[in-house]
Amino acid sequence: MALGVDYVRQDCSLARALEVVGERWTLLILRDCFLGVRRFSDFEAHLDISKAVLTARLAALVDAGLLARVGTGHAEYVVTDRARELWPAMFALTQWGESLSERGPRRIFEHAGCGGRVDRTGRCGACGDVPGPEDLQTRPGPGADPTVRDDAVSKALRVPHRLLEPLATRG
Amino acid sequence: MALGVDYVRQDCSLARALEVVGERWTLLILRDCFLGVRRFSDFEAHLDISKAVLTARLAALVDAGLLARVGTGHAEYVVTDRARELWPAMFALTQWGESLSERGPRRIFEHAGCGGRVDRTGRCGACGDVPGPEDLQTRPGPGADPTVRDDAVSKALRVPHRLLEPLATRG
Repeated sequence: MALGVDYVRQDCSLARALEVVGERWTLLILRDCFLGVRRFSDFEAHLDISKAVLTARLAALVDAGLLARVGTGHAEYVVTDRARELWPAMFALTQWGESLSERGPRRIFEHAGCGGRVDRTGRCGACGDVPGPEDLQTRPGPGADPTVRDDAVSKALRVPHRLLEPLATRG
Repeated sequence: MALGVDYVRQDCSLARALEVVGERWTLLILRDCFLGVRRFSDFEAHLDISKAVLTARLAALVDAGLLARVGTGHAEYVVTDRARELWPAMFALTQWGESLSERGPRRIFEHAGCGGRVDRTGRCGACGDVPGPEDLQTRPGPGADPTVRDDAVSKALRVPHRLLEPLATRG
């Protein structure tokens, strides 16, 4: 039972959500998708998982309707509307994680429309909107530690970047 | 690596949050705490986990500062401020889970202050506030399936109930 991924006898929508995105690494793969990662090799460079686990997680996300495979040749993975609807939960969980650190936020989110900083509830401090992920840009905050990783994705994420736009990891 | 619970080389606050609450069953234990479950035997009756796993998860949540053990004799577990700050993320994840179902919401949340229904962003449709968990009451929605469980916690949760208030599971 402890090794299962379903919560069969829990009549609960939190359990249902966790059946889809609760497996180890799944939410971090989706995080990377929101950050603009699309290619298998980029996920692999940025996440410390084996090809087998990454392949399984991406396939499960496609099956669940959260990612779509696009393009010919080297596939790219993009978030679907169903995955975009998960953004508020992922953002809230991230902000709670930020609150556990005393170094300040690792990552700052700004409203691309007006440049205002987004607070931990997702609201723009300048205009009062709650921007969707497509209207956010992100950059490292004072709590980020650039010494942890030097892969191409991590480097590309050190400059301000609009969410969901493909990350430029190749020169 | 796949069996670890930490994401050591992910300089990311979502990863940090998942290190604390990402283990299987942990968020469902916290859900029960918000619903008013406090006693070991009630968690056990409501969750399909062994005593060993429940003991380990509760201890980890106490260690992480999310639950406090209170009372003498039979211990009760109550959420700390740090856990209360996790409510927006848990609520958002639950609402996303609700969106996966076509039967309507399994659980409805209302603002105890004014009786308004809380929308999926956590905002009260009547007064416009975003109530904290202590100002919410909950009852089963049309998507709930009362045939799934008949333990004392599930039965107690079939009547409207204020969040965080101890659940009356004993006659």
